[in-house]
Amino acid sequence: MDRAFFDHLSAIARAAIASAVHAGVHSENKSNEGAFDPVTNADRAAEQALRKAIGERHPDHGIWGEEFGWSGEGAQVHWSLDPIDGTRAFICGLPSWAVLVGLLDRSEHIAGMIDLPALGETLVTVDDETQRNGLAVRTSGCAALNEARWSTTDPFLFLDSEAERVDRVRRKARLARYGLDAMAYARVATGEIDLVIESGLKAHDYDALVAVVRGAGGHIGDWEGGDDFAPGRIVAAATRSLYDEAVATLSA
Amino acid sequence: MDRAFFDHLSAIARAAIASAVHAGVHSENKSNEGAFDPVTNADRAAEQALRKAIGERHPDHGIWGEEFGWSGEGAQVHWSLDPIDGTRAFICGLPSWAVLVGLLDRSEHIAGMIDLPALGETLVTVDDETQRNGLAVRTSGCAALNEARWSTTDPFLFLDSEAERVDRVRRKARLARYGLDAMAYARVATGEIDLVIESGLKAHDYDALVAVVRGAGGHIGDWEGGDDFAPGRIVAAATRSLYDEAVATLSA
Repeated sequence: MDRAFFDHLSAIARAAIASAVHAGVHSENKSNEGAFDPVTNADRAAEQALRKAIGERHPDHGIWGEEFGWSGEGAQVHWSLDPIDGTRAFICGLPSWAVLVGLLDRSEHIAGMIDLPALGETLVTVDDETQRNGLAVRTSGCAALNEARWSTTDPFLFLDSEAERVDRVRRKARLARYGLDAMAYARVATGEIDLVIESGLKAHDYDALVAVVRGAGGHIGDWEGGDDFAPGRIVAAATRSLYDEAVATLSA
Repeated sequence: MDRAFFDHLSAIARAAIASAVHAGVHSENKSNEGAFDPVTNADRAAEQALRKAIGERHPDHGIWGEEFGWSGEGAQVHWSLDPIDGTRAFICGLPSWAVLVGLLDRSEHIAGMIDLPALGETLVTVDDETQRNGLAVRTSGCAALNEARWSTTDPFLFLDSEAERVDRVRRKARLARYGLDAMAYARVATGEIDLVIESGLKAHDYDALVAVVRGAGGHIGDWEGGDDFAPGRIVAAATRSLYDEAVATLSA
């Protein structure tokens, strides 16, 4: 897959979102369970634009998207789309929202993009190398939890049993940042955050991140030391050593 | 006080910070108590540049700054400076950090600036009107907690007794965002966040915010319904009604 196609997808999504912003963003609640899980016209417009661009170029590929589900399910190669990761941030005028695009060959994450339109940054990973705006980036190399800047989007999203485990990490780490959505993983890749721990993620939330973190030299896996992402519990770290220490601390 | 002088201070601070970034940012820990309270060469360079610019223009004014303390203490008019609010965000490559400048006549907050260099936004309040990059802004008008987008920088910074009170607000509000530092107050002023609740703030943290929130039509006060900011417990809201409901919920 060539980088130029990811740049094309970034431009397509940004244009669709800008049009929606210009027309007036309106959000509605997707959740039936009393929670507030917003989706906007911008989310839908961006996903439709991405699906159209991918379908024209790669009609044989499958597409999974947060808002419109599967097309071509079962294809060997498929795209995984989150048109606006961080919709809450988006509707609060905060710049951490991202357009996420992952590319998988069966279950292998072979390429990905974290596009941060509000910051003018596009991280693209192809051929195991992550670039930001065309320049290769690397993780920090941080290898010890007590030196680590760690992040999670919402510390109140953890189940009680998870919260106890995460709290041990929080107490050991040097510094915590919250509320970042996919921007946290982008900052792992660019070497400015060292560790991210989250749960409850769906495929469209994490598929883009896997290649981006790995392509910058980081390690991303599950909470148990493996790489089963399906349960949605993710640890992304600047180094394998830091990942291992985080997993050990979560399990202690 | 004229807006042009605030724009001058913004330019001065941004240049000092950019020079420090170019030379290489290095952080050290200010805390003696086991916590990590970072300060960088960029913080110090920006405060020195601001103090010099203010001293040249207003030699009769006092200056309080986070890094270098008082000069001219006791002057009727004084400036209150936080050269980089959100140093943790700054060293994590996150765009929420701000340059904060407040202006007080005795204890009255008469002007203020929240400058967001990473976002290219400068909010300045003079003559009770808040402008962003020269255009007047207004709060959202949100008047009910169950409709409110609320924010606090770090939910683990609250004392246990405070955390219980804040938790009641969190459960009632529509949506929570964390980790924003002074950017949260800027978003109250621009109408995209409705409520901010924090504790443990120092004068240099809140002095700039007071005029900015008020000048956009918002209400800012303490946790008890008054305006005694000295204990560092702040509630900023889009409207007086929302402020009152937040204070009632904190006190319930």
